[in-house]
Amino acid sequence: MLVLSSPSGAGKSSIARNLLAQENKDGGRAIELSVSVTTRERRHSEVAGVDYHFIDSARFAEMRDRDELLEWAEVHGNLYATPRKPVEQALEAGIDVLFDIDWQGTQQISEKMPSDVVRIFVLPPTMAELQARLNRRAEDGAEVIARRLANSRTEIAHWTDYDYVIVNHDLTRSVAQVSAILHGERLRRIRQVGMGAFVDGLLAEDL
Amino acid sequence: MLVLSSPSGAGKSSIARNLLAQENKDGGRAIELSVSVTTRERRHSEVAGVDYHFIDSARFAEMRDRDELLEWAEVHGNLYATPRKPVEQALEAGIDVLFDIDWQGTQQISEKMPSDVVRIFVLPPTMAELQARLNRRAEDGAEVIARRLANSRTEIAHWTDYDYVIVNHDLTRSVAQVSAILHGERLRRIRQVGMGAFVDGLLAEDL
Repeated sequence: MLVLSSPSGAGKSSIARNLLAQENKDGGRAIELSVSVTTRERRHSEVAGVDYHFIDSARFAEMRDRDELLEWAEVHGNLYATPRKPVEQALEAGIDVLFDIDWQGTQQISEKMPSDVVRIFVLPPTMAELQARLNRRAEDGAEVIARRLANSRTEIAHWTDYDYVIVNHDLTRSVAQVSAILHGERLRRIRQVGMGAFVDGLLAEDL
Repeated sequence: MLVLSSPSGAGKSSIARNLLAQENKDGGRAIELSVSVTTRERRHSEVAGVDYHFIDSARFAEMRDRDELLEWAEVHGNLYATPRKPVEQALEAGIDVLFDIDWQGTQQISEKMPSDVVRIFVLPPTMAELQARLNRRAEDGAEVIARRLANSRTEIAHWTDYDYVIVNHDLTRSVAQVSAILHGERLRRIRQVGMGAFVDGLLAEDL
């Protein structure tokens, strides 16, 4: 479970999209994105079922009450959550899962599955650059952008909750950095299911 | 401090040499090898001061008594140790240090500097392959090879002392794996000196 968090506009969605394309490029499914549910309005550039599952508040409450959500949070007045079932299915199949969630969701997932989560925080090079990216996106009104900028300081203040930190100066470099973290973590002894049996086999080998 | 350990012949020296060439290829000194001292005989292919500093037992005892050794161990009847000073100088200069040492040395360094050490264990694909590599090296007599093989099982049994494990099927792939571990670890929040000040700067930035 690889968590990417950042303030809005710091570029984590672009990093996530490029990472998935790169890691699965030989047609395999080595890692897949956890698609969140949200009650907020769909942006013009977003595709339902790909960027988010767009649902109403009643459906959200129903999923929460049935314990079908791995984590949930309210951000800028909208509700966001991670459906539990697709994550459990992927992990059981040996597929890593990438999460594009905020600090509140990260805290909840970390409490539920502490040893399975690798958390990366993405920082913008400057706040001015963050503001410029939100303006370039031109999908939210001025009021929404102002609110996102104000909230970004709250998000950034939680950077110490994360295992890794990268500064997104350049998309290609940031994707390479997240990829190194992913490939390194996969080689951790405690994550290598079956390595104990492999070593037992080595030690038992007759020469 | 990046520690590589493995039984003799599993290929860690080749991995180390190729990793150093790759990581420092733009002429920088991003990571350097800690050159151990040893009382064993120099092999024909080895260069004094590059592969080891070859010293006698009296000099070894003197260095140990003066606390000039970061770790030391006896392996196959020979003494091996890491001189302290070059390591401290590199780390102070912000240069990572690669150690090609055994499980005994790794334990000593881990006790002295637990948060600064990243430990990687290199396993052979099979014991038969390990034996074949020792024979191909053709630098040690049959008796020495037999002893190394017997001791390799002791070394392998300590694989659980390590943070990461790789199986050396292929040199290029193993170097890429160690490189991913190195680059990932450099991005750990706790290793990024100066990131706290960077974030303070972001949070204080006027827009």
